[in-house]
Amino acid sequence: MLRDVYIVGCGMTRFGRSEGDLIDILEQASLAALDDSGLDPKAIQSVIVANMGAGILSHMTGVASALVDRLSLYPATAEVVENGPASGGSAAKMAACAVGSGLVDVALVAGGEKMRDVTGWESTDFVASLSHPQAEYIYGVTLPSLAGMFTRLYMEKYGVTHKHLAMVAIKNHSNAMKNPYAHIHQTVTMEGILTRPEAIVNNPPVAEPLRMFDCCPVSDGGAALVLCSEEVARKSGKPLVKIAGIGQATDTHAVHERKDPTELTAVRLAAQQALKMAGRKPADVNVAELHDAFTILEIAESEEVGFFKKGTGHLALERGETSLTGKIPINPSGGLKAKGHPVGATGVAQLSELTWQLRGEAGERQVKDARVGFSCNFGGFGNNVVAFVLSREK
Amino acid sequence: MLRDVYIVGCGMTRFGRSEGDLIDILEQASLAALDDSGLDPKAIQSVIVANMGAGILSHMTGVASALVDRLSLYPATAEVVENGPASGGSAAKMAACAVGSGLVDVALVAGGEKMRDVTGWESTDFVASLSHPQAEYIYGVTLPSLAGMFTRLYMEKYGVTHKHLAMVAIKNHSNAMKNPYAHIHQTVTMEGILTRPEAIVNNPPVAEPLRMFDCCPVSDGGAALVLCSEEVARKSGKPLVKIAGIGQATDTHAVHERKDPTELTAVRLAAQQALKMAGRKPADVNVAELHDAFTILEIAESEEVGFFKKGTGHLALERGETSLTGKIPINPSGGLKAKGHPVGATGVAQLSELTWQLRGEAGERQVKDARVGFSCNFGGFGNNVVAFVLSREK
Repeated sequence: MLRDVYIVGCGMTRFGRSEGDLIDILEQASLAALDDSGLDPKAIQSVIVANMGAGILSHMTGVASALVDRLSLYPATAEVVENGPASGGSAAKMAACAVGSGLVDVALVAGGEKMRDVTGWESTDFVASLSHPQAEYIYGVTLPSLAGMFTRLYMEKYGVTHKHLAMVAIKNHSNAMKNPYAHIHQTVTMEGILTRPEAIVNNPPVAEPLRMFDCCPVSDGGAALVLCSEEVARKSGKPLVKIAGIGQATDTHAVHERKDPTELTAVRLAAQQALKMAGRKPADVNVAELHDAFTILEIAESEEVGFFKKGTGHLALERGETSLTGKIPINPSGGLKAKGHPVGATGVAQLSELTWQLRGEAGERQVKDARVGFSCNFGGFGNNVVAFVLSREK
Repeated sequence: MLRDVYIVGCGMTRFGRSEGDLIDILEQASLAALDDSGLDPKAIQSVIVANMGAGILSHMTGVASALVDRLSLYPATAEVVENGPASGGSAAKMAACAVGSGLVDVALVAGGEKMRDVTGWESTDFVASLSHPQAEYIYGVTLPSLAGMFTRLYMEKYGVTHKHLAMVAIKNHSNAMKNPYAHIHQTVTMEGILTRPEAIVNNPPVAEPLRMFDCCPVSDGGAALVLCSEEVARKSGKPLVKIAGIGQATDTHAVHERKDPTELTAVRLAAQQALKMAGRKPADVNVAELHDAFTILEIAESEEVGFFKKGTGHLALERGETSLTGKIPINPSGGLKAKGHPVGATGVAQLSELTWQLRGEAGERQVKDARVGFSCNFGGFGNNVVAFVLSREK
């Protein structure tokens, strides 16, 4: 990147069920981020919206123009970026390029999704619209089904058990209790979701071996960031959080075409790129937000990113290394699992959480001495992954 | 822009009715652009798809990941950019930022739309999904209806007549006869579409005063560009076409909120910005591709861009100044009117046409000595406009 890009503002809506429509959600998150930045809204030259489903879910296009209008930011430029559940990461990357290229000095990234207007299977079918149309979708493949098959292979190959999956849920639900923006504020226990006989009723199978508490909820929600040049960031007086590294990689669209479907190659490549650009190693990362749409993914990603050796993520989890006070706290926000996963918002929300962590503004869920943060935003079933390294600067 | 960006490859599908699906269309255009660039496909680091309607029209998301897969370009990054009918301009801008920021050296921009899978009113309703949901869409506003009202006002204020509108159609249909990629290969005459009594049958009203031949057709189609750094462009050996200027501006989402609805403020601002960045004046432009989704728009945009004084575009048209051999040839490709308007492809196709013109490769429709080209890609009803200035370099 020819010039550095900083995050000077971030904001979120409470994830969950929103009374408003998609534009209301994006507006609320944007106003929070603008307010947090302390900048005059007139400084915004570019608005980039991350959204996956406005067309299918709300019969809307041109959502970014609608947001600029709602915020009275014209003549600021506006566009929507879509990359499935990694739309947020992609939008933030593109905004970083707009600032990094010198075309603009200040950009607003707003991610949002209004998913709960449709019910049950329709949400799942909507998300499945990202699967391969001929090789997956027409056979009824859904994201939970892909994750279920992935989990089965992972269990066989590495000895991951239902108990390890539940540990991810328990940890992330516990973190979410400390996050006022999280969708689910509910402490769960190993007994309640797994070991008591009646747990099968409260935590029924979704796509075996995955059970309900292994899957993220369906959420409405929005998150926003204000990105800017170093000059604007220094003038703003806000704590300096830099986008130190960006990485992104694609993999085969259809999961069954991968040589070894338990390898998440795109996660590995995206993480390597982001860390290389930042001049960091996995061990330098103090806090990470990983894309735990399913509990197994947090374990697998923690390995592909390089925090733990392949096949040992569940053991590190068992030892508590990924808890809030562990060696490398993962998903202090509660993750997608408990904070929620309004798909277009997720990548942006990950960066908001890291920004709060690096500023020391994360309240009860603050990771001690966090200076370097890492995020992994996972699109498709690992076919398009965006990673960031953020660093606190002086 | 901190470093210059060049166009080294361009390609299109023939617009019209495509047998293939959206991915087939994008693939075909991309392969043509890659082939034209002469670069090894492995050089592509970023794929940006311009598309407006995959969600609504094809129940698809993650189209860019699907295209990367089809072209076997992984691990190249991939995302979709949506900005209504200006999606193509926005995608090209974002790809330019990716190269201009130094994040990547080579990017593929592929715009495409598969619009003819739905019939009649459904196409119009799909495009209307970009109108203001509460202030326009629910009242049945469509793009032709907005254009009809705009035309009525323009006629009253500036003395534009049905004859002037027909002149745009006649000119652009004539140009399209020389463009192998154009949807409509049909010469039309003033008698045939306007002055003979039976013309009302062949050219019926759509949204008065606009008649059928004042409106672009509904087309499937794709267009693609390969963008790169100066270093890559010089090594490629291709004629050097530089993205010299980029401009973009938004306006109120609802047209009725504009002080004077006959002013296309976003066109004016976007053009000013693009020309300023390029260090050019309107009079320096040798060839222009304007967004004539309706004939009136070519006239109005030719004024807002600064080729002619406000209210005099129709007089310049009458004098033949915008014909292929005129002072400032407009829409040598045939424009949206006759080349067709697969919405996501249009902004990309405009830049392809300009590239061919600046290289001297436009065949029978070649504008003599074209060194500076200008494009205007018009989103919404003028609520989000993207403009480019391209220049031939040595």
